[in-house]
Amino acid sequence: MPDDSAARIAAELRRWASTAAPGTRLPSSRALVRAHGASAATVQKALRTLTTEGLVEARPGVGTFVRAVRTPRPPDYGWQTAALRSPRVHLPAPSSSVRPAPEGAIALHAGYPDRELLPERLLRAALGRAARSDVAVTRAPAAGLPELRGWFAAELAAATPVGVAPPTAGDVVVLPGSQSGLSSLFRALVGAGRPVLMESPTYWGATLAAAQAGVQVVPVASGPAGPAPEELDRALAETGARAFYAQPTFAAPTGALWSATTRAGVLDVVRAHGAFLIEDDWAHDFAIDADAAPLAAHDDAGHVVYVRSLTKSVSPAVRVAAVVARGPARERILRDRGASSVYVSGLLQAAALDVVTQPGWTRHLRHVRPQLRARRDLLVAGLREHVAGAHLEHVPAGGLNLWLRLPDAVDLERFVDRCEAAGVLVGRGTEWFPAEPAGPYVRLNFSGPEPGAFPEAARRMGAVLAAC
Amino acid sequence: MPDDSAARIAAELRRWASTAAPGTRLPSSRALVRAHGASAATVQKALRTLTTEGLVEARPGVGTFVRAVRTPRPPDYGWQTAALRSPRVHLPAPSSSVRPAPEGAIALHAGYPDRELLPERLLRAALGRAARSDVAVTRAPAAGLPELRGWFAAELAAATPVGVAPPTAGDVVVLPGSQSGLSSLFRALVGAGRPVLMESPTYWGATLAAAQAGVQVVPVASGPAGPAPEELDRALAETGARAFYAQPTFAAPTGALWSATTRAGVLDVVRAHGAFLIEDDWAHDFAIDADAAPLAAHDDAGHVVYVRSLTKSVSPAVRVAAVVARGPARERILRDRGASSVYVSGLLQAAALDVVTQPGWTRHLRHVRPQLRARRDLLVAGLREHVAGAHLEHVPAGGLNLWLRLPDAVDLERFVDRCEAAGVLVGRGTEWFPAEPAGPYVRLNFSGPEPGAFPEAARRMGAVLAAC
Repeated sequence: MPDDSAARIAAELRRWASTAAPGTRLPSSRALVRAHGASAATVQKALRTLTTEGLVEARPGVGTFVRAVRTPRPPDYGWQTAALRSPRVHLPAPSSSVRPAPEGAIALHAGYPDRELLPERLLRAALGRAARSDVAVTRAPAAGLPELRGWFAAELAAATPVGVAPPTAGDVVVLPGSQSGLSSLFRALVGAGRPVLMESPTYWGATLAAAQAGVQVVPVASGPAGPAPEELDRALAETGARAFYAQPTFAAPTGALWSATTRAGVLDVVRAHGAFLIEDDWAHDFAIDADAAPLAAHDDAGHVVYVRSLTKSVSPAVRVAAVVARGPARERILRDRGASSVYVSGLLQAAALDVVTQPGWTRHLRHVRPQLRARRDLLVAGLREHVAGAHLEHVPAGGLNLWLRLPDAVDLERFVDRCEAAGVLVGRGTEWFPAEPAGPYVRLNFSGPEPGAFPEAARRMGAVLAAC
Repeated sequence: MPDDSAARIAAELRRWASTAAPGTRLPSSRALVRAHGASAATVQKALRTLTTEGLVEARPGVGTFVRAVRTPRPPDYGWQTAALRSPRVHLPAPSSSVRPAPEGAIALHAGYPDRELLPERLLRAALGRAARSDVAVTRAPAAGLPELRGWFAAELAAATPVGVAPPTAGDVVVLPGSQSGLSSLFRALVGAGRPVLMESPTYWGATLAAAQAGVQVVPVASGPAGPAPEELDRALAETGARAFYAQPTFAAPTGALWSATTRAGVLDVVRAHGAFLIEDDWAHDFAIDADAAPLAAHDDAGHVVYVRSLTKSVSPAVRVAAVVARGPARERILRDRGASSVYVSGLLQAAALDVVTQPGWTRHLRHVRPQLRARRDLLVAGLREHVAGAHLEHVPAGGLNLWLRLPDAVDLERFVDRCEAAGVLVGRGTEWFPAEPAGPYVRLNFSGPEPGAFPEAARRMGAVLAAC
């Protein structure tokens, strides 16, 4: 049958073409007719098949040619293996808390508050004003806009007791977010190869920044009232460390709020060791049952280096933070910032300043507080009802998170994965420990979208736990 | 006279109080009356004088006491000296090119183009739109907005010849400005303690970023047509370096544009050594007589890691840049970025993308070109007329700067200072050399404010040079 002939001729030509060099001319149709004893139509049909398959190409009036078969070769970057060498520092992948949530999932894993908790109206107006003003087309000074530096200083000065010299705008360096600030602080105040103490658990971004800076993290146990000053004393003495990174107020992930005794004790220890306390006051604007009271307000001798961010409370699109530091430390930090980013977008700085100096900002913070409380309490109630096997060590007086301890026998990875399969995203506690975790913990953010789904999330977590 | 008595008593008490311990009680009024043989009114007057002077204080019903004299003691941050230790890396102060110009000075020292060269109308509209959209209240993905990554890839793809696989959005990482990108590239691709080659002279920000990353800079001589490939070959072989940072197109500070031979030669050498070429295409949008043609467009094997910034061409307030890298190198860079800043403000990304995808953007670039040409030519003419003793090695085909060599006998510091005293700010050439400068150079930015003052600036520079 003619169809069979065409297929047979095509198969033979396919074999031949597969070994021929690209660009080789096929025998003419006439020659193929002769060689195969087939009709011209059959030969044409065989050639059309090969053309469709991309093996040959007809150049009208010239002939038919074997095509260069361009199978998409996977690119070979093998040479980079040697060029990149083994990294000096193995940086972990970013925390799972920054990945986007799949459609329909209840997201308790994220680190950022939901849009409904942002001062959206103030923010849009401020951005609009900034877009129309000079800051949209000019470069900001290296240390930041003087007015914004003044605001950060004034915020801390307002908490400063009589007898302590309050900070001034000259002590402030504006940062493009606190993450890059932490990198600078660890490089500037600690330095590669040297130790820095950190609470355990602590903010994952701090351990990541420390790893990048090549500094060695030494964990210090910390509980709901903060670390024991004598533990800190011992660790400073043992390691020779001159810096302690900590979150005295509504710490991530635990929500811990240091007691007055701990605060005074830590400040004494830090002074006695001639060391820095790097105070990360990230949750300053997320107070619920207690006001944020920066430890830095009690120090005018340059021991406390204070970091405050507006990213989470103003908008994740307005990455503005600041460090307040006194003495040569500030100059060392400023130098590092100069090498890191030269300056921070003045547009974002102006917009942030605009938001926080509006009368509406105080009203907004007053409005956020009961919302955070209601969200926190709703999630706590859900956990107590449905996840009774787990232990909530502490109901935080501020911040955005609950820190839930699962029964020791639970396989954390399996629990987190099964929760995700059940449509609930939770934060894997291991990410907040600088070393081995003290137990199987999950971090639950109560500031995410859809608080109405918290009871259902708790119910599903309970079901997963029961099956684990 | 009673007045004299009061003054005499006050003077005596002042002497006495100056040696008494703070808190010492003064003799009673009655005792003073007795001792000085004065009236009670006179004694009271003397005491009021001392009170007003802040030397004593009356505690009603108790007595009058010597006050603790609170002379404002300068704060003592001496303890920080030991805590900060000697820095691992001595970072220089930021370049003088980033400092603001004094009122009335002709500013040829800066690194940024004047406002009139920015797409101000497009920019303000874009920022306004961004302020009203979702990007104002949401967090951007770690690698950047997909659409912006696509735009950066497409720009490079448009220059990619047939036969080379063009880059895709997946190869792009958006950066908060190229300075922090360079820090990441040196950390990720080179690593502390290892060598990186750089042209000499080169961009000061690159040597600063390298110092911060702790990498060792090895200079390679470069001229108006770029470095000699055989020099590069020798330096790579000698040092074992696996990375070369360079600006093939309108290099800062010289304006050099690599010849086709240099481009092909450098790419061959880099390939032969299994090394990276970090191509900084900072002046892509500042072409004058020749178009910018990225070298990266000729590589699909991951050798060229390409950096492009929009900070100078869109707005210094919109700090958005990108790196295009293929293979494991990109993953290594992305990890470093994650530790450095987590993500870049989506608002700035969206605004930048909005600007560069408007039809007006191409019109703007077409409009900037003749302006840059006129400015460059005006300054060149001024220098040729008034600063004949200096040597302009090369009239650049793009970029923002002239690179002027002064006679070897000139003391550069004195020249720069005297120019400043004469109201002309110029860039100190030493800042662009990774090692000892090859001669006394100044960098003159022709994109700053008031091009009309260029002839006058040249005249004053000529006068200073003649007096040097």
